[in-house]
Amino acid sequence: MPRYRLTVEYDGTAFVGWQRQAKGVSVQAALEDAINAFCGERTTITGAGRTDSGVHALGQVCHVDLAKEYPPRTVLKAVNFHLKPAPVAVKDAAVAAADFHARFSATSRHYLYRILNRPAPPTVDRNRVWHVPMQLDSEAMHRAAQPLVGRHDFTTFRDAQCQALSPVKTLDALLVSRDGDQIALAVSARSFLHHQVRSMVGTLKLVGEGKWPESAVAVALAAHDRRRCGPTAPAAGLYLVHVGYEPREDAPGRDDDGQTRIS
Amino acid sequence: MPRYRLTVEYDGTAFVGWQRQAKGVSVQAALEDAINAFCGERTTITGAGRTDSGVHALGQVCHVDLAKEYPPRTVLKAVNFHLKPAPVAVKDAAVAAADFHARFSATSRHYLYRILNRPAPPTVDRNRVWHVPMQLDSEAMHRAAQPLVGRHDFTTFRDAQCQALSPVKTLDALLVSRDGDQIALAVSARSFLHHQVRSMVGTLKLVGEGKWPESAVAVALAAHDRRRCGPTAPAAGLYLVHVGYEPREDAPGRDDDGQTRIS
Repeated sequence: MPRYRLTVEYDGTAFVGWQRQAKGVSVQAALEDAINAFCGERTTITGAGRTDSGVHALGQVCHVDLAKEYPPRTVLKAVNFHLKPAPVAVKDAAVAAADFHARFSATSRHYLYRILNRPAPPTVDRNRVWHVPMQLDSEAMHRAAQPLVGRHDFTTFRDAQCQALSPVKTLDALLVSRDGDQIALAVSARSFLHHQVRSMVGTLKLVGEGKWPESAVAVALAAHDRRRCGPTAPAAGLYLVHVGYEPREDAPGRDDDGQTRIS
Repeated sequence: MPRYRLTVEYDGTAFVGWQRQAKGVSVQAALEDAINAFCGERTTITGAGRTDSGVHALGQVCHVDLAKEYPPRTVLKAVNFHLKPAPVAVKDAAVAAADFHARFSATSRHYLYRILNRPAPPTVDRNRVWHVPMQLDSEAMHRAAQPLVGRHDFTTFRDAQCQALSPVKTLDALLVSRDGDQIALAVSARSFLHHQVRSMVGTLKLVGEGKWPESAVAVALAAHDRRRCGPTAPAAGLYLVHVGYEPREDAPGRDDDGQTRIS
């Protein structure tokens, strides 16, 4: 029973999120339905990150087992054909080792958060950015973010519904950069707590608009108190860009606590 | 009667184009209606480029005369407020000289054409790119495009419905570059013939996929024959990025033949 590894891109706007829900269309269900339409099999797909409703992916990774072996190129073309018109596409398909696990084998996750920072609302980027009309100091945001990098108890930036066993995570990078009226926050870690990225972004925005001093972010982190977090940034600006694995895909790997609920 | 210069961004997907039409919603009508809602005046807006249905703008420029003078910031905020939920936004507003003309004062127009070059269809960029599944040689496209730069008779790349008095235009630049699976064509001229950019892009794509030798583009140009043009590229990939004016906005200026029908 060959296992396939799929790299998937989607516009999360109209979905209830990655994960299948009782109500509404999930990305997972769209993919499982397309696979069923292609080969007649009822499968369960496992993704590296359970993105929330409205969150996009440029490089989500998932795995699925099929009874029959098909050339990866056939899987890619057939699943993309049956996904239409849903805004989900398989960018890459490969046969994976039997013990490759999209979620537990992942060694790094890379998110992008996009802010459109100008008075005019978004048009071509509607539902794809967080629109912040007030001028933000992106350099202050970058400096304020650096104390977050490293191994910390991220309770302050953790959603109340987070199911992770431990609030301790290792943040590998958080870079804030500006290009014209676009601000990009690139965030990398092995795994994240639920809403961690959006909680950090919403807090850094307070620094950007001058409501918080730069040093307040490190203070909020050290408080281990959700009430010290800024408002969670909206889903529309968040993209799961890339999921990293060991060069040998079948190498064992688990994230800090087996939890990868993200965004 | 103060004249305002507005820089406008829009997602052209759902519009019949820039220009007001008997049927369907145009960008021009959306703006004129928003201005009417703001100040009660029935105005006519003049744009620098009459983009077609599906063509986007990041920096369309237009002018409009209002009976009363308002601070430009008020115009920007009020028009944006009344434009909602249409995917049109005023990025910048300024009081212009009385003889500033968005179309005739323009000295340069800059377009971007975006190709998504990969097997998987677009998701987050749906309606914003031309999806070309077959691998294109972007460097060959760039080389083939260079003979188009300069002053030429562009009859080959001119739509049958083009109303320009002369097919002679001066193309200032046509740069083809690749970033991963995205190909960008940056095209600049004082003015263009109708469908000129999309005709050139559609022709260069034939070179990119190896159906035409690089030299065939220059041969097609020299033929001055529309039948030698490749298929016109779709509207969705085209963006009016920027319109340039003389530093003194009130300086007189006209394009080659007073025609600026573009895209």
